[in-house]
Amino acid sequence: MTVYFIGAGIGGIDYLTIKAHRIICDAEVIIYDALIDTEILDIASDDCLKICVGKRGGKVSTPQATINDLLVQYAKQYHSVIRLKSGDPAIFGRINSELDALQCIDTDIQFIPGISSALAVPLLAGIMLTEKDDSRCLTIVTAHNINLLNWSILSQIDTLVILMGGKNLSLIIQQLQLYGRSPNFPIAIIKNGGSPQQQTWKGTLSDIVEKTLNISLSPCIIVIGNVIKNEK
Amino acid sequence: MTVYFIGAGIGGIDYLTIKAHRIICDAEVIIYDALIDTEILDIASDDCLKICVGKRGGKVSTPQATINDLLVQYAKQYHSVIRLKSGDPAIFGRINSELDALQCIDTDIQFIPGISSALAVPLLAGIMLTEKDDSRCLTIVTAHNINLLNWSILSQIDTLVILMGGKNLSLIIQQLQLYGRSPNFPIAIIKNGGSPQQQTWKGTLSDIVEKTLNISLSPCIIVIGNVIKNEK
Repeated sequence: MTVYFIGAGIGGIDYLTIKAHRIICDAEVIIYDALIDTEILDIASDDCLKICVGKRGGKVSTPQATINDLLVQYAKQYHSVIRLKSGDPAIFGRINSELDALQCIDTDIQFIPGISSALAVPLLAGIMLTEKDDSRCLTIVTAHNINLLNWSILSQIDTLVILMGGKNLSLIIQQLQLYGRSPNFPIAIIKNGGSPQQQTWKGTLSDIVEKTLNISLSPCIIVIGNVIKNEK
Repeated sequence: MTVYFIGAGIGGIDYLTIKAHRIICDAEVIIYDALIDTEILDIASDDCLKICVGKRGGKVSTPQATINDLLVQYAKQYHSVIRLKSGDPAIFGRINSELDALQCIDTDIQFIPGISSALAVPLLAGIMLTEKDDSRCLTIVTAHNINLLNWSILSQIDTLVILMGGKNLSLIIQQLQLYGRSPNFPIAIIKNGGSPQQQTWKGTLSDIVEKTLNISLSPCIIVIGNVIKNEK
């Protein structure tokens, strides 16, 4: 019995790894998040059980305890169970409680890394996150609760990538400026990264809110750093 | 005419994306780094020109200007030229001067993200880089020259991932402790990540040097953070 924690990447089949593709083709059960592209689910066999445990900000989602129970139940009954996460399973994938739950049964656990939106979306928008002079230090955070982050440190990072920060954009900018970032410091917001609807706004800490006024920014990746000036 | 900057991931075909695989199959020219697995080069057609421009720490490598010239020359002559980098092209891939060189000719440029060792290798070693309580902030740096990094900031980061730090391990530990990290703070070193030879050492800032004494640690990924205590 094996439970595979697989990263589905940032969209359809294109950004799936060969290994993930092979394991999905052979799976008996796939327990997947709401953001998973149906194109990926369709490569599994018709006999495969596909269970959506969608967790999406603001909407009703399956409680974590229920997901844990489902995983344990299916892992006991089937040889190949996939826990499919968008992006990479370990980058803000919140899989620890699922892993803990699985410890009570005798099952093999395998991790299959995926393309993380934190790195891939800026690249697809032509922003190189690390550069010889402009960025020696890259930091990734999730900003659904900005009070949990240390903005004194984050305001000194060369390149800062913020996931789930769309709704808190004004507060993020406020914090960065409070801790010394110049109003002219570059920022970019990439919405729907990796999809045909990908859209990028670029500006500075002082004008990006105005540039994106009345636009729903979720899901988006925010990049803050001088690397934005060198967009390719 | 298109030049594709493709991330080859962390090893053989398994960690290549479906999109990268497809483009490599159809390529006319592949200009690749020394670390690229031959298994990946073998999927290209027999007619494909495969040019190694190996850049490897310490060894003689093709000068960057020569790589730039090669790219421009081939991009002028062929429809599909691949610049194949290990990991992800934008994560310390040093591709900016190549991109700048290509601006002098009329060619389309496409970026294909790859699985980055910075995120994937810790996952394959069972270390979840981000966790609800233990790591809200993940930072990635390259440490071939530790004097260029701001250790006062890095010593306060929840989870710090250091690439190319094997040779400077003692100096890295010295800096972190100088700026307040406890001798008991957890550290892990993963060598040959993603390959069958993958090996992990875990310890604290005070004992990891002794634990890895007389072991050649390159290539390795260093992870520093409380997330190591919860290894799965």
